[in-house]
Amino acid sequence: MAAEKIATRSADYSQWYLDIVNRAGLAENSDVRGCMVIKPHGYAIWEKMQRALDRMFKDTGHVNAYFPLFIPKSFLAREEQMAEGFAKECAVVTHYRLKAVPGGGIEVDPAAKLEEELIVRPTSETIIWHTYKNWIQSYRDLPLLINQWANVVRWEMRPRLFLRTTEFLWQEGHTAHANQEEAEKETKRMVEVYRTFAEEWMAMPVIVGRKSEGQKFPGAVYTLCIEAMMQDRRALQAGTSHFLGQNFAKAFDVQFQSKEGKREYAWATSWGVSTRLVGGLIMTHSDDQGLVLPPRLAPLHAVIVPIFKTPEERVNVLEAANKLAASIRDLDLRSWLDYEPVSVKVDDREQYQPGYKFNEWELKGVPVRIEIGPKDLAKGACVLARRDLPGRESKEMGVPLEGAAKRVGELLKAMQADLFNRAKTFRDANLHEIDSYDDFKKRIEEPGGFYLAHWDGTRETEDRIANETKATIRCIPFDRAKEAGKCMVTGQPSAGRVVLAKAY
Amino acid sequence: MAAEKIATRSADYSQWYLDIVNRAGLAENSDVRGCMVIKPHGYAIWEKMQRALDRMFKDTGHVNAYFPLFIPKSFLAREEQMAEGFAKECAVVTHYRLKAVPGGGIEVDPAAKLEEELIVRPTSETIIWHTYKNWIQSYRDLPLLINQWANVVRWEMRPRLFLRTTEFLWQEGHTAHANQEEAEKETKRMVEVYRTFAEEWMAMPVIVGRKSEGQKFPGAVYTLCIEAMMQDRRALQAGTSHFLGQNFAKAFDVQFQSKEGKREYAWATSWGVSTRLVGGLIMTHSDDQGLVLPPRLAPLHAVIVPIFKTPEERVNVLEAANKLAASIRDLDLRSWLDYEPVSVKVDDREQYQPGYKFNEWELKGVPVRIEIGPKDLAKGACVLARRDLPGRESKEMGVPLEGAAKRVGELLKAMQADLFNRAKTFRDANLHEIDSYDDFKKRIEEPGGFYLAHWDGTRETEDRIANETKATIRCIPFDRAKEAGKCMVTGQPSAGRVVLAKAY
Repeated sequence: MAAEKIATRSADYSQWYLDIVNRAGLAENSDVRGCMVIKPHGYAIWEKMQRALDRMFKDTGHVNAYFPLFIPKSFLAREEQMAEGFAKECAVVTHYRLKAVPGGGIEVDPAAKLEEELIVRPTSETIIWHTYKNWIQSYRDLPLLINQWANVVRWEMRPRLFLRTTEFLWQEGHTAHANQEEAEKETKRMVEVYRTFAEEWMAMPVIVGRKSEGQKFPGAVYTLCIEAMMQDRRALQAGTSHFLGQNFAKAFDVQFQSKEGKREYAWATSWGVSTRLVGGLIMTHSDDQGLVLPPRLAPLHAVIVPIFKTPEERVNVLEAANKLAASIRDLDLRSWLDYEPVSVKVDDREQYQPGYKFNEWELKGVPVRIEIGPKDLAKGACVLARRDLPGRESKEMGVPLEGAAKRVGELLKAMQADLFNRAKTFRDANLHEIDSYDDFKKRIEEPGGFYLAHWDGTRETEDRIANETKATIRCIPFDRAKEAGKCMVTGQPSAGRVVLAKAY
Repeated sequence: MAAEKIATRSADYSQWYLDIVNRAGLAENSDVRGCMVIKPHGYAIWEKMQRALDRMFKDTGHVNAYFPLFIPKSFLAREEQMAEGFAKECAVVTHYRLKAVPGGGIEVDPAAKLEEELIVRPTSETIIWHTYKNWIQSYRDLPLLINQWANVVRWEMRPRLFLRTTEFLWQEGHTAHANQEEAEKETKRMVEVYRTFAEEWMAMPVIVGRKSEGQKFPGAVYTLCIEAMMQDRRALQAGTSHFLGQNFAKAFDVQFQSKEGKREYAWATSWGVSTRLVGGLIMTHSDDQGLVLPPRLAPLHAVIVPIFKTPEERVNVLEAANKLAASIRDLDLRSWLDYEPVSVKVDDREQYQPGYKFNEWELKGVPVRIEIGPKDLAKGACVLARRDLPGRESKEMGVPLEGAAKRVGELLKAMQADLFNRAKTFRDANLHEIDSYDDFKKRIEEPGGFYLAHWDGTRETEDRIANETKATIRCIPFDRAKEAGKCMVTGQPSAGRVVLAKAY
């Protein structure tokens, strides 16, 4: 398993990413074009993400529900931007039955053609707002704060594991409000939830801001987003929160009686993050030895590798290992780990040597490795190794077994903080102000990175930059300096700098 | 909301069920034929079920993963029984793009026709075993113990909320083993997990047994199941665990090198339960006042309804209510509730009267209601009411506020036990031995119930019973008495009694 080396980031970043996904057992391509199989280790990371996000959603007053996978074709057509934005990537169900072919095999039964084709949901605004029509009669029914965990399908011509797949898993929040102010507050609240999750759980620093017209969600009045920098200095859009105005309420005729007794259209938001985050997590922290996981999202926090030669040594070492594992499980990190216990495994497999096990757990990104051998045991000690530090620096030798569990807890917390700080230092070092479009065109190629530039605010200039450089406006950051200037492309007035980068 | 009465079970059982689903806010039909919207309260129950089951799966060594929604048509054709069993109810994706119609609207783009149609998974054996081929090389890769939480689609002509829907949510376990014995042990272990879940969480007694040939899963060598009795005395198949032999390994050529160095086909199991369980839960416990939920699966365990007239009373009553709520949340029931805290709500809505609130929470099945009014408060007491007991019997008056939290904990545990016992008493009272087919034909109509009868073991007799009575062989129970006899239909020899009933 740990036989061949993985590609290095500097030699071939794309291959490095695929090697990590493959060798750490996270996902693989299926025989269905663009659809991936999420393998147990990859799915366990997604489960950790789900759990933390779900609690944050519930803590902000949301409840979960489930809406149909299929959407009648005509629903999609009702909201114009949405039809335009998604029509080109929809999987279409046209029949509801197969039949046996005389002589063997099965074929689509032409007699079972649907009157109206069904679309496999690319996102659920249409079917949900169609449903909300019956749920919303009065201001008393508002706000409606609903989230759905689901699979969605957007036909993908150039798939890439986790980052861009035809089918992906996500959550989509769909809220309805009695007035614009409340809906806009919700839109902002949820992008803040995403920022908190990205930074405090994924240890991934993000820039929060608003999308330009060219990059907003089809059907939105505006889109807020979090943007992260990967280790190749490209941007990853990691989460979006949309203010939908009354667009969907009007398309699906969702009116309610206001406190003042008037009929009004409801105001909407929607917001989502997906399994793409697993790709972002990999590309933010991992190294040339394999996956690196922030402890708060690691399915396994620590692994104990016993080292022995004789059967007697084996018994003693395993006893000490199991005792230590138990005391690590008892660590009180529950609130930090969302009420789950610390997860620790004693790797007592007999068919593999310690070196093989070290490699395997390194590849899989287990935050802390613990080694216990007869020599350590004689001193009542063990060796601790942090996954995120290089070579010798990662190791703490002769840690007394008695205090080892506590030390593991400290290392997990330190690693979580250090991963964030390291990623932020990297991001900040590759974030530059720029004023010359010629410079920009060169530097976006080499060394790459995020560029803060003045832009005249027009769609025309936005499109020109995209066509000429393949870079896009990632966002208009919330915290940008109030600094008037001139567009680096056209010289026209600009109200402030925006973030430009090449993106996944 | 609580204005109209719901139908009674005795007057119209089907309508009663639909009324509960509707009025308790559990689910509704969508505009997509056969697909339901699972509303927040219904989904919260499913989440509780998922959580408890997921822990049981993990405690028995399973991990989760995710496989594609779409299955190439040819995969389905490879396993003959499966193709036959599912072809007639498959949603088929034939195109991957829509396009704008000149003049408005969108249509399927005929240029985007798939070379091979994709089936929306009705179950995932085929795509999973196709994937396993690459995962299983050696006996060291076995057993493979994987579960998936997913949506599946089986086209349904006569849908019924939760019980039979075109799209439903479920979990499907798919395991691979090195030998038959291990696979059979797994098949049995998982039906036992389902039994434990049904009885200890759902408080729903079940009969565990083996399906007859006519009722087994397409592709299985045999199927084990749990069968529950609903309040109309019909059976509900609540979970199944299939021993698949080497059928799928052969269909997808999954061979491994055994310890002895031989190439062998892997042995398979699969097992699943679905959102149908929510329907079973409703029909097992609910009454003519609304939903009744076993506390271990209730999204909300207790609700406190404050009663007051003056603003001053309001302040005092709410203060006491919030204090009591806090001490209920502190109850140490975490291991009983799968590490989640007791969930309690103070219903301080101003626009509704207490009577309205009582009805609403009764309808929604909250296990314990607490009333606090000024008179109670003067005595330092409150009123507790258990959802599952009728009228006066349900109430405990003058419970001291100090001990009230502890008492709520006791009531939750008592209610969980009583619901099971009550359901079991009902089931046992409606489970009869029968020896005459003529009697059977009458009694299966009125009063209905489960009938233990001798059967000659042939498919012919099984089909005849089904055709003539609409009753089916629910299972050959594990714990049946070793009692030879004569088939009630043919008089041929029988090795023991089987369970017959009309079923959902």
